[in-house]
Amino acid sequence: MGVLYGVGLGPGDPELMTLKAARLISGAGVVAYPALAGGESFARSIAAGLIPVGAEEIVMAVPMAVDRAPAQAVYDGGAARIAEVLQDGRDVVCLCEGDPFFYGSFMYLFARLSGRFDVEVVPGVTSVSACAARAGLPLVARNERFVVLPGPLSEDQLRAGIEGASSVAIMKVGRHLGKIRGVIAALGLEARAVYVERAGLAEEVILPLAEAPEAAPYFSMILVTKGADPWL
Amino acid sequence: MGVLYGVGLGPGDPELMTLKAARLISGAGVVAYPALAGGESFARSIAAGLIPVGAEEIVMAVPMAVDRAPAQAVYDGGAARIAEVLQDGRDVVCLCEGDPFFYGSFMYLFARLSGRFDVEVVPGVTSVSACAARAGLPLVARNERFVVLPGPLSEDQLRAGIEGASSVAIMKVGRHLGKIRGVIAALGLEARAVYVERAGLAEEVILPLAEAPEAAPYFSMILVTKGADPWL
Ligand SMILES: C[S@@+](CC[C@H](N)C(=O)[O-])C[C@H]1O[C@@H](n2cnc3c(N)ncnc32)[C@H](O)[C@@H]1O
Ligand SMILES: C[S@@+](CC[C@H](N)C(=O)[O-])C[C@H]1O[C@@H](n2cnc3c(N)ncnc32)[C@H](O)[C@@H]1O
Repeated sequence: MGVLYGVGLGPGDPELMTLKAARLISGAGVVAYPALAGGESFARSIAAGLIPVGAEEIVMAVPMAVDRAPAQAVYDGGAARIAEVLQDGRDVVCLCEGDPFFYGSFMYLFARLSGRFDVEVVPGVTSVSACAARAGLPLVARNERFVVLPGPLSEDQLRAGIEGASSVAIMKVGRHLGKIRGVIAALGLEARAVYVERAGLAEEVILPLAEAPEAAPYFSMILVTKGADPWL
Repeated sequence: MGVLYGVGLGPGDPELMTLKAARLISGAGVVAYPALAGGESFARSIAAGLIPVGAEEIVMAVPMAVDRAPAQAVYDGGAARIAEVLQDGRDVVCLCEGDPFFYGSFMYLFARLSGRFDVEVVPGVTSVSACAARAGLPLVARNERFVVLPGPLSEDQLRAGIEGASSVAIMKVGRHLGKIRGVIAALGLEARAVYVERAGLAEEVILPLAEAPEAAPYFSMILVTKGADPWL
């Protein structure tokens, strides 16, 4: 039986892929990846330069619906096709932006296949590490607490999460930017908040939160560092 | 003037280094890294196969003291030597285990040098991503909250952090293992907690927390995943 590799690709710059990811992709006979229905696959674009000519590609076209059922059906179908290949004795390299187990859709394949097949996860650089590096913002040191919050959370959940932490990364900002900014301002932390869009890519934007654009894309993040314990 | 690169090396397996880290180290004329006073440098050991013969090495031998002053003096000295090299027009590649801005000592050099010199941080795979990958534990999905807590925190701080999160990584376990285990057990979460020691290295240990050894080393972590919202 083949092995399923869930391979983290890092946040977008192909050079932020690990040596192991590059080796596995370069030798892949079958790659699998999610794509927006009818559109681009960010994961595939990161790995594009390394995918061997002639490799079989299993594309999971995930609809952007609020309802879960359509996406579940897509992962069911992708998992079934991957299972066929593995049963055939061939490995499958699944391409995952960032780190596969950190808000990554690879989890949905892992849940469907890890009981029946050998699965190896290759960790990747997260978008959080990339945003901090590009913004020149040390995240946490010594005994500080770090919290990661998705932007769709409620104002109360965001507030509680930010209050309990030394530093915070808020993911999936998009249309939640206004709400998030309101919570951060009410806590008096706006001056300590940075907006990062498409870290490490050609269209990168890094701004103080107060100057962030009205309309944030999906690939954006807000970092808040309270700087409670700077040990110089 | 030269550029200071703070280069994340990932969690220990040299193959989990990024392509960019490997390129910078392979071309380095001067490398800098922390080491335990009188002992090993974990960072240097990860990069060892790539450091060019004849490269100058700036070693910061950091004492394991509770008092901050001795370590501060070591980083002062290291920063001064690095500044000389940069002023001389040569680049310095600083080797950092994991990600430089995530509980990394590179922050102390960044604080001392980033005002005067060009500093570029190359993000790396964190030990959190590596431990989750090796343990086969998806960390967070959808709108879940992720928290990272250092083991030296008080019982109350640990409890509050764990209660507010969907998943938790507890770093710097070492001699705090008993205290951490007590807090997790009191919350009824022991069955959802995994102990990971030296993820990805030859001496790796992965066990349910209940079976963790009495004496945990410094390079160990506890992951707690509540599995609140598993979207299958
Ligand atoms: C579904 S999550 C995937 C996270 C990914 N698995 C990781 O490890 O970073 C998508 C979110 O990651 C963040 N993100 C991913 N890449 C990014 C980048 N290059 N710049 C800024 N944010 C990014 C955004 O917050 C986006 O909404
Ligand atoms: C000073 S912090 C450095 C973290 C590092 N900068 C990173 O990004 O992961 C040291 C802590 O990281 C964790 N750690 C580092 N490498 C590890 C490994 N290979 N396995 C388990 N834990 C590790 C342990 O909790 C250890 O106490």
